[in-house]
Amino acid sequence: MQRCHELALMGSGAVSPNPMVGCVIVSGGQIIGEGFHRQYGGPHAEVNAVASVADHELLRNATLYVNLEPCSHFGKTPPCSDMIVEMGIPRVVIGCRDPHLKVAGKGIGKLVAAGVEVIEGVLETESERLNEAFITVHRKGRPFVALKLAQTLDGKIATVSGASKWITGEEARTEVHRLRCSFDAVLTGAATVIADDSRLTVRHCAGRNPLRVVLDSRLSIPVGAGIFDTEAETVVFTALSMQDSQKARQLAKKGVAVFGVDERECGLDLAAVLDKLYERRILSVLVEGGGRLGSSFVRMELFDKLYMFIAPVLFGGDGMSAFAPIGIRLPEQAIKLDFDPPCRFGRDLLLTAYVSG
Amino acid sequence: MQRCHELALMGSGAVSPNPMVGCVIVSGGQIIGEGFHRQYGGPHAEVNAVASVADHELLRNATLYVNLEPCSHFGKTPPCSDMIVEMGIPRVVIGCRDPHLKVAGKGIGKLVAAGVEVIEGVLETESERLNEAFITVHRKGRPFVALKLAQTLDGKIATVSGASKWITGEEARTEVHRLRCSFDAVLTGAATVIADDSRLTVRHCAGRNPLRVVLDSRLSIPVGAGIFDTEAETVVFTALSMQDSQKARQLAKKGVAVFGVDERECGLDLAAVLDKLYERRILSVLVEGGGRLGSSFVRMELFDKLYMFIAPVLFGGDGMSAFAPIGIRLPEQAIKLDFDPPCRFGRDLLLTAYVSG
Repeated sequence: MQRCHELALMGSGAVSPNPMVGCVIVSGGQIIGEGFHRQYGGPHAEVNAVASVADHELLRNATLYVNLEPCSHFGKTPPCSDMIVEMGIPRVVIGCRDPHLKVAGKGIGKLVAAGVEVIEGVLETESERLNEAFITVHRKGRPFVALKLAQTLDGKIATVSGASKWITGEEARTEVHRLRCSFDAVLTGAATVIADDSRLTVRHCAGRNPLRVVLDSRLSIPVGAGIFDTEAETVVFTALSMQDSQKARQLAKKGVAVFGVDERECGLDLAAVLDKLYERRILSVLVEGGGRLGSSFVRMELFDKLYMFIAPVLFGGDGMSAFAPIGIRLPEQAIKLDFDPPCRFGRDLLLTAYVSG
Repeated sequence: MQRCHELALMGSGAVSPNPMVGCVIVSGGQIIGEGFHRQYGGPHAEVNAVASVADHELLRNATLYVNLEPCSHFGKTPPCSDMIVEMGIPRVVIGCRDPHLKVAGKGIGKLVAAGVEVIEGVLETESERLNEAFITVHRKGRPFVALKLAQTLDGKIATVSGASKWITGEEARTEVHRLRCSFDAVLTGAATVIADDSRLTVRHCAGRNPLRVVLDSRLSIPVGAGIFDTEAETVVFTALSMQDSQKARQLAKKGVAVFGVDERECGLDLAAVLDKLYERRILSVLVEGGGRLGSSFVRMELFDKLYMFIAPVLFGGDGMSAFAPIGIRLPEQAIKLDFDPPCRFGRDLLLTAYVSG
């Protein structure tokens, strides 16, 4: 199954919005075939693995390992579960189920009905992690949302004077660029864009630029701002009342899409923003912004993962906190997460945590 | 040298205020002798290692490894550097120098003058870490001070309502008890004692109780509080004006020593407190208390190490910050530290950091 994960990762960046899948076929204690999903729309991992087997007779006594449940429906390609049955493969080992409505156990059902022995849940957590965006999207019906923050060891994102450049070092900032590459979209607020003239492009490492998403309820960002350059595609969400304004037309002329959404008491309707992004096949969103924007996602429980970079410095209690108030009065009401193992970048640490299921 | 460290650690808890020292003697590629400092006042590691060598003739062609520079003065035992020379050992490998005023390079000087080859600085950082309290005491002329805090991932030690029980889990709290064992004293403030009736004893693991030190400028802690029980020794520091009060006499009757020190704008004079503890041969102090007490040590730059337990929960920006203001206006003025590798305790992380040299 670990080899399946290695193979699956070879499709990283090329298969979205499909999941990354790797497949290994074993017979007589030897690997006789391997494959992975290489490209969106192209053949699935199972098909590539079967095609790589020299002698198809061996399949009649083989075990097929795959990190995600084989599909059961006609999409861009015919169902893999049917193919497995046709090839006479007697045993299938699966990492995790496919939460896609059209699959969701039906792939396994077809295999079992045809007399194939199915073993589920092998390296299940790792298999789900591998396709965490894909799995979240199909479970929750919205894109996978990760928040990225950088704070001091005493939990501050700026000093009392508002100064925040720089808290973390170069290595950590490069890692942020690497993170951006792995998301379909990067989302920020007008305040951050105006304060930092941030462009949210991938510069310190190789990789494609994600879609830039800006929440700007009053369309207050100047049309000439770096975020509206042609380096990457940008969409702006604003209040309904602003979507037909002159500024909106100026942005449209620059190739920036402007969408109006409802306003809620603490800013634009984030669920509506995520719905619109989902319509555009955006499966994963990295939220980079000040404490206020992140807090809105936390308060609405519209996030799945937190990347917290921590610098080994202290600003003291009058510094600015990472989050705004999120309505917690007692420790037991706290938002609960689970830590992944920490990583070090230069002098800083990256603490990664998932919202507790 | 790693073996020296292993041996040295066998003296943990028994040798303070002496350093932990281990010694290995090698001849012809084989270890021919080992020893460590077992007990305060007893023979040093080098003496024990030499005594363990069966054939002293072998010493004339041997290398002696020791994590701390051999002593050069008559203390409770005669100088080890003289002994090394007398035994005819031709080569000595040293982890780090002994900052003790009576040694500080003089041990190495004696060896070199007698024609012994000396190699210094092997696993130097690790050797200094092993005796960090001892080394700090002799370098800075005050006890080694570590701050212990427990906060949420967003840097809060209590919610907006002031509630803080519990932020971290059982495993982290047990580790705090283990930490206490390794310090000569544990220091806290009156506010924490009154709020939590904390006793600061070692309960969740095996080990001796450190001296309990309480800062209580107004002597406001009730005489019947748990901290004044007979489980462990307690000393109280208060304002000069309170040291002869009736309350002070009541405490003295319970066996609690009360010392008066000057007051500064933000509480008792911490340097005076540390001086008094140093006089009592307290080499290491763990500060456990609210954000205000820790901040005073930070503001006065009277700390060396920070143990920050982090729970994977969020309280939001209206929670209470770990520290009070410490006078930082710009990021470049921040108190700078260096991270050690993080450790996990249950669901929580322990981030350990040292003040940057």
